[in-house]
Amino acid sequence: MRPKKKQELTGNDAALRFREIRKYTEELCKPLEIEDYVPQPSVDVSPPKWNIAHTTWFFEEMILKRFSPEYRVFNPDFGFLFNSYYNTFGERTLRHRRGDLSRPTVREVFEYRQHVDGEMLALFDREMPREFHHLVTLGLNHEQQHQELFLTDLKFILSVNPIFPVYDPEFALVERGIIEGDGIVGFEGGIKEIGYEGSGFCFDNELSRHKVYLEDFEIRKDLVTNKEYMEFIEDGGYRDHRLWHSEGWDWVNENEVSHPLYWKSVEGQWHQFTLAGLREINPENAVCHISFFEASAFAEWKKMRLPTEFEWETASDGMNWGFRWEWTISSYLPYPEFKIAAGAVGEYNGKFMVNQKVLRGASVATSPDHSRKTYRNFFHPQLRWQFNGIRLAK
Amino acid sequence: MRPKKKQELTGNDAALRFREIRKYTEELCKPLEIEDYVPQPSVDVSPPKWNIAHTTWFFEEMILKRFSPEYRVFNPDFGFLFNSYYNTFGERTLRHRRGDLSRPTVREVFEYRQHVDGEMLALFDREMPREFHHLVTLGLNHEQQHQELFLTDLKFILSVNPIFPVYDPEFALVERGIIEGDGIVGFEGGIKEIGYEGSGFCFDNELSRHKVYLEDFEIRKDLVTNKEYMEFIEDGGYRDHRLWHSEGWDWVNENEVSHPLYWKSVEGQWHQFTLAGLREINPENAVCHISFFEASAFAEWKKMRLPTEFEWETASDGMNWGFRWEWTISSYLPYPEFKIAAGAVGEYNGKFMVNQKVLRGASVATSPDHSRKTYRNFFHPQLRWQFNGIRLAK
Amino acid sequence: MRPKKKQELTGNDAALRFREIRKYTEELCKPLEIEDYVPQPSVDVSPPKWNIAHTTWFFEEMILKRFSPEYRVFNPDFGFLFNSYYNTFGERTLRHRRGDLSRPTVREVFEYRQHVDGEMLALFDREMPREFHHLVTLGLNHEQQHQELFLTDLKFILSVNPIFPVYDPEFALVERGIIEGDGIVGFEGGIKEIGYEGSGFCFDNELSRHKVYLEDFEIRKDLVTNKEYMEFIEDGGYRDHRLWHSEGWDWVNENEVSHPLYWKSVEGQWHQFTLAGLREINPENAVCHISFFEASAFAEWKKMRLPTEFEWETASDGMNWGFRWEWTISSYLPYPEFKIAAGAVGEYNGKFMVNQKVLRGASVATSPDHSRKTYRNFFHPQLRWQFNGIRLAK
Amino acid sequence: MRPKKKQELTGNDAALRFREIRKYTEELCKPLEIEDYVPQPSVDVSPPKWNIAHTTWFFEEMILKRFSPEYRVFNPDFGFLFNSYYNTFGERTLRHRRGDLSRPTVREVFEYRQHVDGEMLALFDREMPREFHHLVTLGLNHEQQHQELFLTDLKFILSVNPIFPVYDPEFALVERGIIEGDGIVGFEGGIKEIGYEGSGFCFDNELSRHKVYLEDFEIRKDLVTNKEYMEFIEDGGYRDHRLWHSEGWDWVNENEVSHPLYWKSVEGQWHQFTLAGLREINPENAVCHISFFEASAFAEWKKMRLPTEFEWETASDGMNWGFRWEWTISSYLPYPEFKIAAGAVGEYNGKFMVNQKVLRGASVATSPDHSRKTYRNFFHPQLRWQFNGIRLAK
Repeated sequence: MRPKKKQELTGNDAALRFREIRKYTEELCKPLEIEDYVPQPSVDVSPPKWNIAHTTWFFEEMILKRFSPEYRVFNPDFGFLFNSYYNTFGERTLRHRRGDLSRPTVREVFEYRQHVDGEMLALFDREMPREFHHLVTLGLNHEQQHQELFLTDLKFILSVNPIFPVYDPEFALVERGIIEGDGIVGFEGGIKEIGYEGSGFCFDNELSRHKVYLEDFEIRKDLVTNKEYMEFIEDGGYRDHRLWHSEGWDWVNENEVSHPLYWKSVEGQWHQFTLAGLREINPENAVCHISFFEASAFAEWKKMRLPTEFEWETASDGMNWGFRWEWTISSYLPYPEFKIAAGAVGEYNGKFMVNQKVLRGASVATSPDHSRKTYRNFFHPQLRWQFNGIRLAK
Repeated sequence: MRPKKKQELTGNDAALRFREIRKYTEELCKPLEIEDYVPQPSVDVSPPKWNIAHTTWFFEEMILKRFSPEYRVFNPDFGFLFNSYYNTFGERTLRHRRGDLSRPTVREVFEYRQHVDGEMLALFDREMPREFHHLVTLGLNHEQQHQELFLTDLKFILSVNPIFPVYDPEFALVERGIIEGDGIVGFEGGIKEIGYEGSGFCFDNELSRHKVYLEDFEIRKDLVTNKEYMEFIEDGGYRDHRLWHSEGWDWVNENEVSHPLYWKSVEGQWHQFTLAGLREINPENAVCHISFFEASAFAEWKKMRLPTEFEWETASDGMNWGFRWEWTISSYLPYPEFKIAAGAVGEYNGKFMVNQKVLRGASVATSPDHSRKTYRNFFHPQLRWQFNGIRLAK
Repeated sequence: MRPKKKQELTGNDAALRFREIRKYTEELCKPLEIEDYVPQPSVDVSPPKWNIAHTTWFFEEMILKRFSPEYRVFNPDFGFLFNSYYNTFGERTLRHRRGDLSRPTVREVFEYRQHVDGEMLALFDREMPREFHHLVTLGLNHEQQHQELFLTDLKFILSVNPIFPVYDPEFALVERGIIEGDGIVGFEGGIKEIGYEGSGFCFDNELSRHKVYLEDFEIRKDLVTNKEYMEFIEDGGYRDHRLWHSEGWDWVNENEVSHPLYWKSVEGQWHQFTLAGLREINPENAVCHISFFEASAFAEWKKMRLPTEFEWETASDGMNWGFRWEWTISSYLPYPEFKIAAGAVGEYNGKFMVNQKVLRGASVATSPDHSRKTYRNFFHPQLRWQFNGIRLAK
Repeated sequence: MRPKKKQELTGNDAALRFREIRKYTEELCKPLEIEDYVPQPSVDVSPPKWNIAHTTWFFEEMILKRFSPEYRVFNPDFGFLFNSYYNTFGERTLRHRRGDLSRPTVREVFEYRQHVDGEMLALFDREMPREFHHLVTLGLNHEQQHQELFLTDLKFILSVNPIFPVYDPEFALVERGIIEGDGIVGFEGGIKEIGYEGSGFCFDNELSRHKVYLEDFEIRKDLVTNKEYMEFIEDGGYRDHRLWHSEGWDWVNENEVSHPLYWKSVEGQWHQFTLAGLREINPENAVCHISFFEASAFAEWKKMRLPTEFEWETASDGMNWGFRWEWTISSYLPYPEFKIAAGAVGEYNGKFMVNQKVLRGASVATSPDHSRKTYRNFFHPQLRWQFNGIRLAK
């Protein structure tokens, strides 16, 4: 992870931003019961307790231990318990075992947050080196990523409960994906500039800014709707092997997939589980919780295709985006001159650059002020617990 | 399940006993944090929340729905959520998915208990049929079984946490297994009477009382100690295939087993995880958390064998027992004239009569007033999260 | 394995018997194509090539190396390749990997047989110690066991081939299970003598002869027929959980079992795969290829039960038996005074005495002169590739 | 699959080419024993019998059934048995079950070849439509691909045998990977043309020819040697998580990988299994049987990287290539205007375009006249039973 080198916030501004983002995490926690913090029904989701401890661990491990000479570790066990995938720090709790831990309690984890926040805020009053501010910015962007994961993981956790618990009756989220139309825009090919440009923060995987050559292409201004996707289902899309990748077809059959994640037919009517409980599906909304395999098969059925991430970035200014992570056909690979940073932050992005697909955009669960057109999200092609959707190109 | 037909408690006495046993469950819960009620780190253990709801469900489903015409179900979802293995009642939560459920909350489950207890106690004031009292007795014995499981499951849940949480500093339990000596007693063979006799409660698998023919045998008055077991380890017992059953040897190698469950060597000293945290092992205590495979290999190493359940029952009056469930060589099979009862209680015992070993005795975690010499416990030969130990015969 | 100590054949008689039994194995091989010797479609079956090499290995490893000072090992690799489960001889080919080995070729394996047979026959001309003759007898009984496995394994191997290959058009085998009637015989209880008595050969698990106490019981003279079993199927036997053990019910559901192994419905008519190809089922034959779980569920449906192995042995003289291995309710456990023999032969029986059920009788695939009423066969309760059937008792 | 539309061979020339390529397959079979044709020790390899039947099936299914009105299918079962992954033709033998089939015999499969070859050659004497010739060309290229797989699969099959069978003492193959030097060449960036151009045959995944933009890059003229790779091993490359992708690190640990496939240390000296048996490794040869994960980690250790497939194609004229399939960093994705062909040939390439890496070049096992610089091979990143190696770029 290599944050851009300019215009970091400092002093009061930095402290203010730190407070705001940390507080937003705690706002998200408010509707939870203590029990909701514990389970991990799938290896791909983390228990909320782990999530809020891990983002705190990041500040303790990467910043306080290094920049605050008098810092006393809150609890030496937490370094082990709340490390995610950083091999540099040695052993860690097995990723699929996070839901087995009842202790530390939720109360203790909030005390941990408070302790670390206090120590961090004390540092903002001092003159700190640029590297400190870089790492704070990185830590806050990291926390924002985990705010989104908090919501998507919680949704999955509640969804496996046959009684469909409600997180917040006002928080259906998927309904916020408004479709405006279905126009298509054409773009002329040629050499395009790709990657982050500017003086704000970006992740290292958005750099270096570089040239690519694109053919002419067309792209839809809006996302695929639930209505279109229902037509695909009714037309037998899940039963026609010719539409699917070979691995996608195996995935459909092994998991008996016949609709998007969280969909459920109740008396002949499609419903979906939301953070506000089970709700009837609005056909006009953008389809959501779609795997890459499904997105590809749908595009094949429409005789179109998914865009490349470069087409997406090139076209983004003219598109309606920001409420679904959008699958691209591009594999997650390094840009030219990408270098893995030294130390633990070097494990942030590069080591995941195999077998994953790039998603572009942002979602209804993305934290405020945490999206830009060069942002590269990435997941394995079968995953669909994010708020992801489909945009078509040709 | 067919409780004996005589001398059930009725009226005030029955209500008193009901109150006592139900209250004891709640006593056991007192040291828990809310988070401790949720996880299920192994398919063989149940979360405490599930445990206390399930014993309540038994009274609602088997008694209140049948004997209390005006009874209003507390929550219709609970019938589904807290059924254990009774296929008769239809669908149930997959056994290995119990730890994925954050809701209902612990508070709601205690409200459920209170609701059911109130309704039950109201019935004790009335004239009720004999079948009611039979089922109450069964339900209370069922609850006592779950009180023991509550402790053994909780021990397992806390044990997987690398920070070794303490349930209660006074509750090491294993230490209560006092060995008095190692004398051996001889018994003459011949025809013996086996099975429950008397007018109190017993489970259906303890009947009918019947004859068996035994050869002469000798049996140790006391259980195997930690010290003896350490000698077995030091002598390479876990590495000598000749001592093990073929499936036992596979189990040792696949799971890299080299000591009893919960043992941990700290700076060259054997310790064990207990409900009071990690404690140094007392060599004079009875060895605990032993699988049938280990018990058999140990006996082979001692050039002795495990007793049959009939030898055990015949010899029990002269032995020191009651703090370890003791593996016998006997497979769990029906006694003559065993009949599966009609309806759901018929699923209590008979359908488990394959691939399991009988254990006799009782353990330090067994509820007060819940042991007798004809009691037949049963587990798969690799399981060792119960407080089980080794008695030798020849 | 401890053969009885008397009346071993010696000299010419022994050589003759050796020749006969070894030759019978080769007779069984005649209809095979070379390709048939290789595959292993399930961990429970062995490729024919392995089978005929392994029985030869037994004579080389257990006898020639020990009693023939000048013996030169045929090929040092074979000791490793054709060991079955004898840990005493060190490393062995993983049991589920036997079908991966194309070499040695079938021709080389037959050369191995010839080499070992020549060396063995040379020893019969000399004065040999009693232990030699004991081991020869054991080796020949071992080979006879593998003759039966040769047929049952081959049947499984050919059965997975969608084109249903024919081993020998005259070799349907299952048809040889003739039912004479369905009479029932009663037996009075009391003390009975169980186990081998006499001066011939028996396996160590048939000893010592000892007493057991039996209650009164009744047993059917004949086995359950295909017709009766079809009625069980039609009556929904595979869909009624109340008839099944808990593990049996899981087995039915996980494997989607709805009929005996090798059955196939062709245009509404039940057929079964046989060594003579796919054949229509004769309702009057004894049902075959039944697991213990199915046998138990069927008995429950008939409101009867399976016999114990002691009932079976006691009643055997009055029953029609010898063409199906018959499941008993008894678990495979040692008789009193059973001792594991020193050395490799000690691995023959004792180490399998957990989680297996005893079968009594013999089958249409059993070698001539290899059955007696005290013979104890044993398999895991879900296995059904042997010619096993159902006898009912109550 | 869409072969280029020009200059197909016709008449005698086509027949000659057909005969030559079909005969080459049979030449490869000559050193085999019948038993070698059967096993399938891994789902990724096919038994030789399946391989030679499947290439024949291609001509029967795709050509004879369509273009030869009087054609009589050799055996209707073979369509089912020897289909590989073409869902269009309905059910097929499960890919991991190919080694379970002893029948049809090897002799029958060669009769099948002869039958199909005869019918095919008869067609060459007639005036046939262009589509026929297109499909013949495709079928022969398909057969050539399977000739390479024949060797790589056979190598794997023999390698799992602890006695290291020899296919042909002259056929070590890996030794043919001669390294000439280690010079590095620089290339200037800019717009490059990529993809097949010309009038011969190419696979559909090599089209359309299109433009890409490349940055400046450098690439090594020769491949990485065994010697360099041994240095990586000695330097702890397999134990340093920082060099590996996250999934690569998991793969190393789960499979305990510490050297290339087929390597074996014998008395401190590295050897490797070859088709000529176990041979000492020549440090000057190109390293072989390397996964993408290993190639990436090695490159990271060298502070270089793998080339993209576009860099490779651009630089190929100045490099020494043709004896190792070379991993590129590029994921296997469609070129612009790639269209899946109608019908079964449409399943040839497109549906594999997810989760696989592109390899460029050719190997010592590639059939004569079956390589070109635009050829795109593809495998999952963990696979290494092909003769694949490492070329470095930066």
